[in-house]
Amino acid sequence: MKRVFAEVITIGDELLIGQVVDTNSAWLGQTLNPAGIEIKQITSVSDDADHIVEALESARKRADILIITGGLGPTRDDITKKTLASYFGVGLKMDKKALDIVRAIFEKRNAPMLDINELQAMIPENCIPIYNDRGTAPGMWFEDKGQIIVSLPGVPYEMKHMMTHFVIPRLKGYFEMPVIRHRTLLTSGIGESFLSKKIESIELGLPQHIKLAYLPSFNTVRLRFSARGNNADELDKELDAIAESVKEAIGIFLAADSDNNLQEILGELLVKENATLATAESCTGGYIAHLLTSVPGSSRYYLGSIISYDNAVKQAELGVSASNLKEFGAVSEEVVKEMAEGVKNKLGTTYSIATSGIAGPDGGSEEKPVGTVWVAISGPNGTLAKLYQLHGGREQIIQRAAMAGMDMLRKYLPTSK
Amino acid sequence: MKRVFAEVITIGDELLIGQVVDTNSAWLGQTLNPAGIEIKQITSVSDDADHIVEALESARKRADILIITGGLGPTRDDITKKTLASYFGVGLKMDKKALDIVRAIFEKRNAPMLDINELQAMIPENCIPIYNDRGTAPGMWFEDKGQIIVSLPGVPYEMKHMMTHFVIPRLKGYFEMPVIRHRTLLTSGIGESFLSKKIESIELGLPQHIKLAYLPSFNTVRLRFSARGNNADELDKELDAIAESVKEAIGIFLAADSDNNLQEILGELLVKENATLATAESCTGGYIAHLLTSVPGSSRYYLGSIISYDNAVKQAELGVSASNLKEFGAVSEEVVKEMAEGVKNKLGTTYSIATSGIAGPDGGSEEKPVGTVWVAISGPNGTLAKLYQLHGGREQIIQRAAMAGMDMLRKYLPTSK
Repeated sequence: MKRVFAEVITIGDELLIGQVVDTNSAWLGQTLNPAGIEIKQITSVSDDADHIVEALESARKRADILIITGGLGPTRDDITKKTLASYFGVGLKMDKKALDIVRAIFEKRNAPMLDINELQAMIPENCIPIYNDRGTAPGMWFEDKGQIIVSLPGVPYEMKHMMTHFVIPRLKGYFEMPVIRHRTLLTSGIGESFLSKKIESIELGLPQHIKLAYLPSFNTVRLRFSARGNNADELDKELDAIAESVKEAIGIFLAADSDNNLQEILGELLVKENATLATAESCTGGYIAHLLTSVPGSSRYYLGSIISYDNAVKQAELGVSASNLKEFGAVSEEVVKEMAEGVKNKLGTTYSIATSGIAGPDGGSEEKPVGTVWVAISGPNGTLAKLYQLHGGREQIIQRAAMAGMDMLRKYLPTSK
Repeated sequence: MKRVFAEVITIGDELLIGQVVDTNSAWLGQTLNPAGIEIKQITSVSDDADHIVEALESARKRADILIITGGLGPTRDDITKKTLASYFGVGLKMDKKALDIVRAIFEKRNAPMLDINELQAMIPENCIPIYNDRGTAPGMWFEDKGQIIVSLPGVPYEMKHMMTHFVIPRLKGYFEMPVIRHRTLLTSGIGESFLSKKIESIELGLPQHIKLAYLPSFNTVRLRFSARGNNADELDKELDAIAESVKEAIGIFLAADSDNNLQEILGELLVKENATLATAESCTGGYIAHLLTSVPGSSRYYLGSIISYDNAVKQAELGVSASNLKEFGAVSEEVVKEMAEGVKNKLGTTYSIATSGIAGPDGGSEEKPVGTVWVAISGPNGTLAKLYQLHGGREQIIQRAAMAGMDMLRKYLPTSK
């Protein structure tokens, strides 16, 4: 079976000066891979016609499919459509249905329409329009010399909808795709090198059509096996067997046999137990709550949080004792345990997670440097606290502390055993 | 003055299958631009030697400087170092200082060292090592045919430190850089097309060395002017004059004359007023708290939050009345106002922000579809509530609701006038 390759070209000055992080490419990878399409290269270029054409021509030498995002807005810096029309040597024509959509959007928003909005409904003569239910810029599907070139808006919400509802289904009809299957194991509490040592013989024995990648992130490393072939069931069987040997080799370091993140895993375990959770956050400032509530349906088990950034709030809302605050300080085993117990009792949950630490850049001392974080969890079997010495900047410390808290609870839950 | 161009090549299968979002490139753009170095292209390729070399050769045709990140880990899938050595036709040698660093890290972590860790201290014979204070893989600085090629680890925390402390200072000594100045105005509550119409004459009158980009995000659009020249003061003066005319043209739609985000702007305004803030979050689930506490020093004005994901928590902790919950539902003007007032009184702050809405994907009804969000702010001049009908997925609705809440408070603060 022939492999099908795609390349992604993201267009926009804002990507190159770093004002915007390109999240579209990662999403496209996640979406194209399961469909059997491998991304060979991602290229970001500025809103410059010559450079766009150069990137396009270079990508066409390597790939069957090109997905171009960005540069379709109504303003002068957006030149993708014009550039593509001139690249193909065609003119622009007004697309009536696209114009109707633009008009409907402005009507719905109760806003008067400008000439430049109307121009968004113009498309190159040789393209099939991809109508945009979520914005004013239509996408474009070009077929040229057996290759597919798709141009989509850079707005993720619009781009994703057009990919899912138009581009992927149409690509599936156009190419005969190989099957690509991924299997990911989440490990926790073990470094990349040691993990690699533990699974050395498995890794060396992998057949050629299965690849392994190590994906470290905070206190976890994901092991991702990717298999390519013709038959999904057979590949899955192979991946199952590999996953079983890996599990045996790494033992307690396995956090989950899935590509789920920690908050999803925690949610599944809590639902299984019919248990509820509350958090009391100081240094993580709501980040654990945010992660937990980013999971759809989290209201089934997550009741809420008391974010006690201020010590007075720790006392009044969480029942932390003035004497402990005075004697041991807010960043201490005593206080973090009181926080965990306080929020659990107050919100009446089965479990709780609490954090208290110094995220920096200021506020550290010799005794308690930046990165000192106490995490506590509380549940029917009592309260546990653990001291972490985390490295990184403010953002990293907040993220690592949140992950540490969620992982502590995961290990504590009886269902995780 | 000659323009100095860089390109970024990020290496790793995980980028192409979308398991990891490339945040390094945006950071590099933010860091290189003020130093006078423009990024021409960002290229992401897999851990494949031939493709790495192809990307490298292609980038060398366009740029003076190449920054390569990723593929320096200890495991088998990391091949960047080997590939670069073979590209330059040199062998690897053990670097004693790099080895000392690796040993010290393992000693500090109290972990035994493996052979593959020792191998991380091997570097190509023709490179200058960039020692890594934060991890085991040294970076590499190559000089070849007047071009600089730098290879750094993909771990952001390590890469950033090496860029800031070694690469940028050394590049400044190597190239004569043009001056590049950016000036960003944050607008809020006006769409891209209307903004463009309002500043049309300014945009058309821009000199050639000044470029304008529109950067829309949620309920804001950033206007970014970039000027290139020899003299920072002169460029700043030009940009000041342009910013003044833009401000005059857009009036109340100006949210800030800076590239700060809304949480930073809010923090500055609160400090100026010597005021404090609390939040009561339902549908945003701690995201506002997280954004506010991501700003260093936010403990000066932000006291905490009560995240009342559950209605019982709204009643018990925020004093929301059972009758309002029953009559109007949790997502209502009445309840969100009670939440804002409740948290303000309870935590004793000057101001508060509260949210209650339906983030989806489930939980919507005909009367209150997914995206229905009530936001309230409360302060010395009373309590205001506003209904938002937000679009997007769960993540977008949470983000937009958080931005809406912070922007409502910004407009309400007397100092913002």
